[in-house]
Amino acid sequence: MTLPMTVPAEGLPARVRIHEVGARDGLQNEKAVVPTEVKAEFIRRLAGAGLSTIEATSFVHPKWVPQLADAEQLFPLVRETGVRLPVLVPNERGLDRALALGAREVAVFASATESFAKANLNRTVDEALAMFEPVVTRAIEQGVGVRGYLSMCFGDPWEGPVPVEQVVRVTKALADMGCDELSLGDTIGVATPGHVGRLLTALNEAGVPTSRLAVHFHDTYGQALSNTLAALQHGVTTVDASAGGLGGCPYAKSATGNLATEDLVWMLQGLGIKTGVDLGLLTATSVWLAEQLGRPSPSRTVRALSHKD
Amino acid sequence: MTLPMTVPAEGLPARVRIHEVGARDGLQNEKAVVPTEVKAEFIRRLAGAGLSTIEATSFVHPKWVPQLADAEQLFPLVRETGVRLPVLVPNERGLDRALALGAREVAVFASATESFAKANLNRTVDEALAMFEPVVTRAIEQGVGVRGYLSMCFGDPWEGPVPVEQVVRVTKALADMGCDELSLGDTIGVATPGHVGRLLTALNEAGVPTSRLAVHFHDTYGQALSNTLAALQHGVTTVDASAGGLGGCPYAKSATGNLATEDLVWMLQGLGIKTGVDLGLLTATSVWLAEQLGRPSPSRTVRALSHKD
Repeated sequence: MTLPMTVPAEGLPARVRIHEVGARDGLQNEKAVVPTEVKAEFIRRLAGAGLSTIEATSFVHPKWVPQLADAEQLFPLVRETGVRLPVLVPNERGLDRALALGAREVAVFASATESFAKANLNRTVDEALAMFEPVVTRAIEQGVGVRGYLSMCFGDPWEGPVPVEQVVRVTKALADMGCDELSLGDTIGVATPGHVGRLLTALNEAGVPTSRLAVHFHDTYGQALSNTLAALQHGVTTVDASAGGLGGCPYAKSATGNLATEDLVWMLQGLGIKTGVDLGLLTATSVWLAEQLGRPSPSRTVRALSHKD
Repeated sequence: MTLPMTVPAEGLPARVRIHEVGARDGLQNEKAVVPTEVKAEFIRRLAGAGLSTIEATSFVHPKWVPQLADAEQLFPLVRETGVRLPVLVPNERGLDRALALGAREVAVFASATESFAKANLNRTVDEALAMFEPVVTRAIEQGVGVRGYLSMCFGDPWEGPVPVEQVVRVTKALADMGCDELSLGDTIGVATPGHVGRLLTALNEAGVPTSRLAVHFHDTYGQALSNTLAALQHGVTTVDASAGGLGGCPYAKSATGNLATEDLVWMLQGLGIKTGVDLGLLTATSVWLAEQLGRPSPSRTVRALSHKD
């Protein structure tokens, strides 16, 4: 198998933790419902490929995301993989369901813009934060880790460019609430490296340490990996990615294409940054899932490595 | 039209010159022969979109690249665009043909590896250099600018990773011969940012100034734009790209996907780096050409910007 030559670059972390979102963020955009056993096998194979954090599912009301209505059935099937298995919880009811199954990490999903908060949650930004507060507080009381997702951190399909100060305010609110990790989402994929650097610097100056930040880039305009490089150069060590490039955001105009985990691993391996992931096993997993879904992976690395010459 | 927010980053050039290769490197991989008038219109539209350097065609023997057998007919049709129109010349016969039509810039195409020199030119690396020497010398005597392409600068499908010293030796030979610009090609798309930085640094130390270097990345593994960012951070100001992501290399295993000019312009515009290119006009040009070719552009930016919501 072709692999990159390893040549480190200065000023980059020695290790990056990949937060794999394919099984949740990726699959939730699939129209045809994927069988629970396929999802479980997908998660087991991702764990087998060396991914240490695999977002497993969402305890959202089944009416809103029918694809993930099997959370209660799925979670027990994968609990024994031995990896971190965060789950999305939209509210206290979702938290109850997750805790009842023994989830040890949960995530809430906030928005940096009023338009998306309204579209996604039918709430203002502050109303959404108020809804998350008891979720976060109760999770912490149970010793459960909480990740705060923040969407639309760079641009918004209704509002256009999003002011950095606005993103800092909501991120800080989530951090102050007790979220131990904040994932900055470029939901519509418009960010560029200078913008990434400016937001990370502003958050740092506002007292949110970079060690608590993750980046979540979309490849809508082909920018996800260069933005990731910029984030690494600013000290970020947690990167969200989706195996095979699965997914996007169904509520956001033109928001297609999570950063493919394979494209990310290729770059990190070339840079000599440890991830624990075996690129061959990961690619095989994405090829296998693409067969289950009946269409090819959009990841360029998956396509190139699985190409029969 | 959605556009990135402009946020400059430190340590990057104020302006980048894009060397547009779609009309030559892109089209030469198309099996169905594109009518000469369509090629001419493509080049005129690229010039209209603000591209200042458009590689127009190749004066290779028609037997080898039937797609470009119309070089004599095409070149006079686009000469009046007023932009720089370099043309590829494989040997002295090609140079004669280009000079007869009034070409003011030519390019030769060398290889950093023996395997590709053999496959592409049926010569050793040094035999190929010897063949180029009179081409370069005569072009300079005529006051014609010469670009030297160097392929397989990072990896080679037969040889694997390519040692940096080997690339430095051949690049220096082309520079010493008189090529005023050297384009470093990642023909199979395997490079990563640290490798890019190491090669640029080594060339600089060997006396080849960065101002004479261009980078030519392929997106086979999704790495082209992050490698470009790394090159800009090392002072490179000339970047090769192909409108709509047209092309690849027919002789190199898995070598698909030139960096799409639109994806590059998106990043540069976001960084506030001047290119003179109008992204809307450029995208419209790639959409128009895709219609002529009968299939969608692989550029993510073209797809996103031309998507009907």
